[in-house]
Amino acid sequence: MQKVPEVYAEVSISVRYAETDQMGVAYHAHYFTWFNVARDELLKKMGIDISYGEKLGYLMPVIEASCSYKLSARYADELIIRARSEFTTVARLIVHYEIYRKKDKRLLATGKTINILMTKKGKILLRIPKEFEDILRRKD
Amino acid sequence: MQKVPEVYAEVSISVRYAETDQMGVAYHAHYFTWFNVARDELLKKMGIDISYGEKLGYLMPVIEASCSYKLSARYADELIIRARSEFTTVARLIVHYEIYRKKDKRLLATGKTINILMTKKGKILLRIPKEFEDILRRKD
Amino acid sequence: MQKVPEVYAEVSISVRYAETDQMGVAYHAHYFTWFNVARDELLKKMGIDISYGEKLGYLMPVIEASCSYKLSARYADELIIRARSEFTTVARLIVHYEIYRKKDKRLLATGKTINILMTKKGKILLRIPKEFEDILRRKD
Amino acid sequence: MQKVPEVYAEVSISVRYAETDQMGVAYHAHYFTWFNVARDELLKKMGIDISYGEKLGYLMPVIEASCSYKLSARYADELIIRARSEFTTVARLIVHYEIYRKKDKRLLATGKTINILMTKKGKILLRIPKEFEDILRRKD
Repeated sequence: MQKVPEVYAEVSISVRYAETDQMGVAYHAHYFTWFNVARDELLKKMGIDISYGEKLGYLMPVIEASCSYKLSARYADELIIRARSEFTTVARLIVHYEIYRKKDKRLLATGKTINILMTKKGKILLRIPKEFEDILRRKD
Repeated sequence: MQKVPEVYAEVSISVRYAETDQMGVAYHAHYFTWFNVARDELLKKMGIDISYGEKLGYLMPVIEASCSYKLSARYADELIIRARSEFTTVARLIVHYEIYRKKDKRLLATGKTINILMTKKGKILLRIPKEFEDILRRKD
Repeated sequence: MQKVPEVYAEVSISVRYAETDQMGVAYHAHYFTWFNVARDELLKKMGIDISYGEKLGYLMPVIEASCSYKLSARYADELIIRARSEFTTVARLIVHYEIYRKKDKRLLATGKTINILMTKKGKILLRIPKEFEDILRRKD
Repeated sequence: MQKVPEVYAEVSISVRYAETDQMGVAYHAHYFTWFNVARDELLKKMGIDISYGEKLGYLMPVIEASCSYKLSARYADELIIRARSEFTTVARLIVHYEIYRKKDKRLLATGKTINILMTKKGKILLRIPKEFEDILRRKD
């Protein structure tokens, strides 16, 4: 995340019964959980293992999250969640999302999140720590 | 919601163990659930009974949701969620939120949601239906 | 569900960050959501489309649910959830579950649920309604 | 938890919109989250601060959980969750639950959970550690 590159990831999920609400559609807060699934795939592609980072003492909390809902996702719908990171020169992860319904390729929602990098003690890092960079390099 | 008035509501919740994640803080998507608790209190103050509206065939889906996270909420934290509706002349509910930690009055997060009014068949309403208005009036 | 046959289904899921808690493991209530994913796959194999049944006015609520936790599931763990229905002669679905960790085939949890069939008005059915049976037959 | 006493606790919650499903009732897995809220109140009464215990390196995972559902809880229902611990002479917390609907005192569900005490490294403790006992004593 010294320079966060533009990386793309895609995951697919099926809407769970547990995710529906009494309106008969997927409850809106779950879209952020789905974004998270796609973001983790993105981080994996960048060579970042979240759990390992946490063991070293680094956390990546979300500081901004937003979603625009266009069409409802329903129970058992197969969804494709696309995530693309924005290029930045600071230790900050900006990701844009699109959620599509698989069967008709309709766009259901778009969204954005921003994650920062901080230590377990709450210190926000503007540059990626050396040991973390080494991990990133090690992946190839 | 013919003219949505500026109404204010406040609820308090205690962060549940189920709402924490392995970072040791409340998972970010739950803030939208908490916003929802405050929004429902706001609607109650407006005289709107969501379940009754749904029985009549009217839904109020969220079409926009966003949250800025400033400080982490943690397990067992007592939180105050404040919701204030924005005045509008259309059948659209715009609500602004603030989440405070009770013990030290620190602001943890701010947010915004927009709900629309639609029929079960998916027709978006720009004006509030007559029968719905009657319900609103009946409350006093 | 006139005579509920013994059917077997298997699904795999990956533990989501949202599903972890501050103990650093998957929160115990989510196992019931995972059981549900496997049960829905089982129902699909039986030719039962839950959403369609609900449109006809039939609900299948859970009346019993239990889980024994042996080993913790953790973030990003790939899990296999196996579900097997018990043969019964009444309109009652009894399902037994096993959750395995994919990488080492360790058994993490076992569980059981019982679902009944009822109308939207709350009437519990002991026999499967004719129109429902027709749906089941239609699948082949 | 050297000798776990019989303690009683009661909490009340209001069913959240987020907790409903497309059947129009509270999704069954959430009852375990509500049990957890009542159990935490019970632990507080015993003088046990979960977060502090976790800082010392002790975890209290659930190893058994079950629920019998009698009547559906619905959106906005006010519920009372009663928890009572079973007397035991080992470091094991057995809790029995009852969920009531406030307005008509109807019993909606009953349940049971068993928690064990273990170290962060996964060692199951049969006796409560000395430093933990001291905390318990300190409460008066």
